[in-house]
Amino acid sequence: MAVVLYVPGPRAPWWLDHMRALLPEFDVRAWDEPGDRMDVDYAVVWKPPARGLKTFPNLKAIVSIGAGIDHVLADPELPKGIPIIRTTGFDLTQRMREYVTLHVLRLHRRLPDIEAAQPRREWLQLINPPAYERRVGVMGLGNLGADCAQTLATIGFDTAGWSRTAKSLDGVTCFSGEPDFDAFLGRTEILVNLLPLTPATDGILSKPLFDRLPEGAMIINAARGQHLVESDLLDALDSGRIAAATLDVFHQEPLPDDHPFWDHPKILITPHVASLIDPEAGGKAIAANLRLFHQGKPVPDLVDLEQGY
Amino acid sequence: MAVVLYVPGPRAPWWLDHMRALLPEFDVRAWDEPGDRMDVDYAVVWKPPARGLKTFPNLKAIVSIGAGIDHVLADPELPKGIPIIRTTGFDLTQRMREYVTLHVLRLHRRLPDIEAAQPRREWLQLINPPAYERRVGVMGLGNLGADCAQTLATIGFDTAGWSRTAKSLDGVTCFSGEPDFDAFLGRTEILVNLLPLTPATDGILSKPLFDRLPEGAMIINAARGQHLVESDLLDALDSGRIAAATLDVFHQEPLPDDHPFWDHPKILITPHVASLIDPEAGGKAIAANLRLFHQGKPVPDLVDLEQGY
Repeated sequence: MAVVLYVPGPRAPWWLDHMRALLPEFDVRAWDEPGDRMDVDYAVVWKPPARGLKTFPNLKAIVSIGAGIDHVLADPELPKGIPIIRTTGFDLTQRMREYVTLHVLRLHRRLPDIEAAQPRREWLQLINPPAYERRVGVMGLGNLGADCAQTLATIGFDTAGWSRTAKSLDGVTCFSGEPDFDAFLGRTEILVNLLPLTPATDGILSKPLFDRLPEGAMIINAARGQHLVESDLLDALDSGRIAAATLDVFHQEPLPDDHPFWDHPKILITPHVASLIDPEAGGKAIAANLRLFHQGKPVPDLVDLEQGY
Repeated sequence: MAVVLYVPGPRAPWWLDHMRALLPEFDVRAWDEPGDRMDVDYAVVWKPPARGLKTFPNLKAIVSIGAGIDHVLADPELPKGIPIIRTTGFDLTQRMREYVTLHVLRLHRRLPDIEAAQPRREWLQLINPPAYERRVGVMGLGNLGADCAQTLATIGFDTAGWSRTAKSLDGVTCFSGEPDFDAFLGRTEILVNLLPLTPATDGILSKPLFDRLPEGAMIINAARGQHLVESDLLDALDSGRIAAATLDVFHQEPLPDDHPFWDHPKILITPHVASLIDPEAGGKAIAANLRLFHQGKPVPDLVDLEQGY
């Protein structure tokens, strides 16, 4: 029972140690020291190199270290028909709830303006509407989106949600499908994107969407960089159609040094930390899922490959 | 039935217009054009000039435009025995909830570090503990403090509260009185002050309190400037005992231009906006309270002058 692990960057050794400790009954191997590739039953990966997974001919399942699986599906030669398990759970939901709540409140309360006033020694007493007069909209009502929408409603925001299929959430005005999309966008002053990345949602944050939001709307993208058409955002910020953007995800990560987002005054960059899996909580969730799968038990985090998320 | 109104600064004319519209059956007069002072039954005030209220010999009640009444009690010649009504209500609670939630999350998620990295084009992927491993403490469990503590608990923080008299709040570990103060402070990584200002709480945010917090604790003062001994905070920030402070209130407001807080890298200044009363919602609450009092009905916002808040 061998598991191969791929995590890019400096955190790879951490992950290897942690997964070995969490899965003592498995033989957990590093991606670049895989031993006999025929032995490998499971691959646990984050953004695996293209054409890498097919080099393990006997894979029984692929585990995504994260709630999204787009980084696995992006492999042009991904072996077909292998079950994919994503990583969700309490910890990821908690972290995303914190991120979305923080950044909606930051824009709602105009904290960037207040912070900019401090070096000028300016006593800038802005009067905001209270949250119940602020219309917030969450696109994507899966585990993460539904939790965020309900948290925003609990804090007092006038909260709506939009999803592909109809949902019902306490305290949240739910819209669904293309017929409702105009009504949802037309009311949304602060838009939070938590959609899965699929062919249908690729590039959804673009001029046609921005044009359907109220003038001066603000956006928060905590899903995937590919949801956003970057040049359309820059145009919309320049024209004032969009007043501010908080971006956690990007087409290329880390964001390249010469990218115009870095010094744009209306963009806050957070370095894909909205709901960062840490080796502790994330590792436990992955180990639990791998054991369930290996024992032939139902795995709630198993992806519906038809649906694509 | 005459009412005299005192609001300092440029918002005074707004307030006068609004209160006249909201109280058509009363004769609402500006502080500096009071007409016959003998006629004036009620004074509606924010930080009234010292020795001003005693110039109205027939006052039946004083209304504080705000939840605190310390700015009224500060008058060394305040006429004795006149009932004082404070202004509370849904709107103020909502705004304070937003402020406290925003600023606790901002410190918890180390947003200042992430924001500071952006101009350096640094991809600073900090891993935070989740909220359920972050111990937050709210001092003062009146209307505002209780609501904030419960909101923080709902978001997922490990939340405690401390108050003079024992309270019980769902999801919040409640401490009370001097005997519990050490235990409360010893567990508190992010401290939120929402105490009323009384002789017992004046200067409570000072070296003895800072020394009882864990090393590197962070504080948020959204109550009154006089709660804080400013030089003790500067010392505690310099020594690292306190890692960061978010301050909404100050001994002198607006904060003087030459104050060392303005350019302190560990202090965020917000200009007394945590729960700013706006003329709309605040005016309605004041008008409702004045009518109740005038009709001889019970006024829940009537202050217990024995207790002082």
